[in-house]
Amino acid sequence: MTTLTNPSTPFAVVDRDRLDRNIARLRAHLAALGVPLRLHVKTSKSIDVSARVFADGPGPITVSTLAEAEHFADAGYTDILYAVGLAPDKLDRVVALRRRGVDLIVLIDALVQAEAVAAASRAAGLRIPALIEIDCDGHRGGLAATDPRLIDIGRALHDGGGELRGVLDHAGESYFSATAGEQSRDADQERLAVVRAAEALRAAGLPSPVVSVGSTPTAHTGTALAGVTEVRAGNFVFFDLVMAGIGVCAVEDIALSVAVTVIGHRPDKGWILTDGGWMATSRDRGTAAQPVDQGYGLVTDLAGRLIPDLLMTAASQEHGTLALRPGTAGPLPDLPIGTRLRILPNHACATAAQHDRYAVVAGPAGDDGAPRLVGAWPRHNGW
Amino acid sequence: MTTLTNPSTPFAVVDRDRLDRNIARLRAHLAALGVPLRLHVKTSKSIDVSARVFADGPGPITVSTLAEAEHFADAGYTDILYAVGLAPDKLDRVVALRRRGVDLIVLIDALVQAEAVAAASRAAGLRIPALIEIDCDGHRGGLAATDPRLIDIGRALHDGGGELRGVLDHAGESYFSATAGEQSRDADQERLAVVRAAEALRAAGLPSPVVSVGSTPTAHTGTALAGVTEVRAGNFVFFDLVMAGIGVCAVEDIALSVAVTVIGHRPDKGWILTDGGWMATSRDRGTAAQPVDQGYGLVTDLAGRLIPDLLMTAASQEHGTLALRPGTAGPLPDLPIGTRLRILPNHACATAAQHDRYAVVAGPAGDDGAPRLVGAWPRHNGW
Repeated sequence: MTTLTNPSTPFAVVDRDRLDRNIARLRAHLAALGVPLRLHVKTSKSIDVSARVFADGPGPITVSTLAEAEHFADAGYTDILYAVGLAPDKLDRVVALRRRGVDLIVLIDALVQAEAVAAASRAAGLRIPALIEIDCDGHRGGLAATDPRLIDIGRALHDGGGELRGVLDHAGESYFSATAGEQSRDADQERLAVVRAAEALRAAGLPSPVVSVGSTPTAHTGTALAGVTEVRAGNFVFFDLVMAGIGVCAVEDIALSVAVTVIGHRPDKGWILTDGGWMATSRDRGTAAQPVDQGYGLVTDLAGRLIPDLLMTAASQEHGTLALRPGTAGPLPDLPIGTRLRILPNHACATAAQHDRYAVVAGPAGDDGAPRLVGAWPRHNGW
Repeated sequence: MTTLTNPSTPFAVVDRDRLDRNIARLRAHLAALGVPLRLHVKTSKSIDVSARVFADGPGPITVSTLAEAEHFADAGYTDILYAVGLAPDKLDRVVALRRRGVDLIVLIDALVQAEAVAAASRAAGLRIPALIEIDCDGHRGGLAATDPRLIDIGRALHDGGGELRGVLDHAGESYFSATAGEQSRDADQERLAVVRAAEALRAAGLPSPVVSVGSTPTAHTGTALAGVTEVRAGNFVFFDLVMAGIGVCAVEDIALSVAVTVIGHRPDKGWILTDGGWMATSRDRGTAAQPVDQGYGLVTDLAGRLIPDLLMTAASQEHGTLALRPGTAGPLPDLPIGTRLRILPNHACATAAQHDRYAVVAGPAGDDGAPRLVGAWPRHNGW
C-alpha cells in the first residue's frame, strides 16, 4: 500500500475524486445547454486526465502547442484545434498531422496567415481548416466581429485552397470578473461577438460551420448558447485559487496540489521552511490581483484539510516559506521538520507545468492515514 | 547548416561564446583570490554547461535537488553538495549515492536533522557528511554564527556517527544590493559570518574543514576570502536581467534567451503578439522590484541585437505580448508575422527551468545571417 507519505517531495498531486466531480459539474451544465465540450488539454497535458473527461474514448480537444497535438494524436485523438495564432513556419507540422488522419484545425486573424494556410494547402494537396479569431473583450488577439478584414481573410482562405471552418473567441477578461453575474455577462458578450462574426461571414457567402467559445468562468456561468457549436474549457478539471477567488469553484474543489516537506524553522521571522519552492509551484501569483491575496498558495495537511491562516508567502528555487496571513494573530502551527503538507496553487496550468507527472489519490485513506496513491499519470510538456 | 531560423519556436537558446566569457571572468576573479569554485548546477542543470566550467573533467558541484545529484553522478561527478536543508526521509537516497562512491554532503540547521544524519550513518555503516547552515543576512534558513545551538548540532552529528564537514552560508539578500560597493560589503558579511561559525565549532573542539560561501553577486565582488575554502555560484554562467539590473553583468553578457515568433498584431492596443508565453519564459518578474522594470524581458532580433524600447510586457500560457516601454514615444517597430525574435530573461534559473534542452549557438552567423546552431544540450529537471 502506497500513500502520499511515500514519494520523495516535492511532487504534484491530483485528487481524482475532485477531478471527477469537477468534470461531472461542467458536463451537466453544458448538457443542459445542449452544446458539446471541446476540452482544452493545456492545463493537465495528460492523456489520463482527458480519459476521465471522455469516458467513451477520445473526444474533441483544444491544444496550446503542436507538441500536445502530436502527443494526443499518438493516443488516438483525431479532432484537435490548435488555438494559438499560427506561425506560418509551423505549417509543415500541421500538414504532417493531417496526413496522419488528424482533423487538425488552426487559428488565424491576419491575411498573411490566411494566404500561408491556402498556399500550404495547395502545396500539400489537402485543405487545411482554420478558424478566424474574434476579439470579444480586448484581452489578446483577434478581430472585432464587425472588422471588414474578417471577410477578406475568410475569402483569401476559402478561395485560396484552404478551408474556412468558422470563428472562435475567448473571454480572457472573465478571469478578472468577480461575480457569477459579471461572468454570465462576459459569456453573453463572448457568445454575441462570435455569433455576429459567423453571421457576417455567412452574409458574405462564406461558410462558418464552427462557432467556438470558451473560458472556464464563462463555460460555467453562460445561460444560453444559441448559435454556438462548441465550448472550450480546460482549467476546470483542476481549478485553483484564482478560480476560487472569483467564485467559479470552492477551495474544496481544487484537485491539484503540491506535496512538500518541512525542512526548517525561523521562529524569529515567523517562518516555516519547506522543500517546495517556485520550481514546484511556479512563480504564478494570480491571486495578488484579487481582493484576497493567497501568496504562493494555501496550505493543507497531507489529508487535504486546510491549516487556518497559513500561507506560502515566499519562494526560492527549492525553498518555500510558510507564514501566517498578514494581520493574523499567532502562534504558528506546530509543524516539525519532516512534516508533509500540500500547497494549493494560484494557477493550476502554471503549477502543473513544473512537473512531468501527477501522483493520483482517490478513495479512502491508507493504513497510515494519508491519502492512498492509485496511479502516476505522466504529463507531456514542451513544444 | 542549421541556424536559429530552423527549430520550431519557442525554444531556449544558449550563446556559448557569452557563456565561456562569463565562466572565464569568474574563474579569473577567484583564481586571484586563491579560492576554488564549487559550481551550482541548479541554473543550467546541464552536463554540457558544467563541462565548459570544468575543462579538465568533473569538479566540485552544488545541487539543489537529489535528482541533480543522481544525474551528475551518472556523468562522473563525485564531489557534490546538496545545499537545501535536509528532509530526513531523503536520507535513503543520500546513502545510495554515497554507496556509489559519490562524496555527497548534506545541509542541516537543526538538532533533529543532525540526529537523523547520525542515525542513518550508524544504520548504513558509513559517515554521512553535513555542513551546518549559517544565516548571514536574514534571507532564509540557517543559524546565527553566535547561536549556541550551533555547537549542540555539531556535537550531535560528530559524536553520533555522522561527519561534521563544516559550515555554509549564502548572501541571498545581495540580489537586492544595487551597487558593487554594497555587494562587496555583503561579501564581507557573508565571509565573516561563516568564518566566525567555523571558529566557534573549532573552539568547542569540533572540526570545520569546509567553510563555504556563495551567491553570484558576492562571488564577483568579494575582495578577500581569508578563512573561506570554497565559493559557490551558478547563475553567472547565463546571467540575466536581474543581475544586469544590479550591475553584476552587462545586458550583453546574458547568455540565455528564448527564441519566439511573431504571430499577430494589435495596433489599436500597441501590441505585437508572439508564440512565447510564460510557459517559455516563466512567470518570474524579478526586475519588477528593481529601479528599471524590464517586464517579462528585453527583446532582441534573432542575431541578438537589442530592439530599442521594446519589452515583453505580458504573458499568457503560450502568448507573449510585446509593447513599447511605458513612457516611450512610438511607433512600434515593424515586425511582420513570422519574424523571429529573442527574449532576454529576468531570471535565468526560472526561464531555463521551463525547457528540457538548449539550442546552442556560437561563432560567426550562418549563410542566412542568423546565429549558427552548434549543438543541443539536454537539461535535467525534476526531483
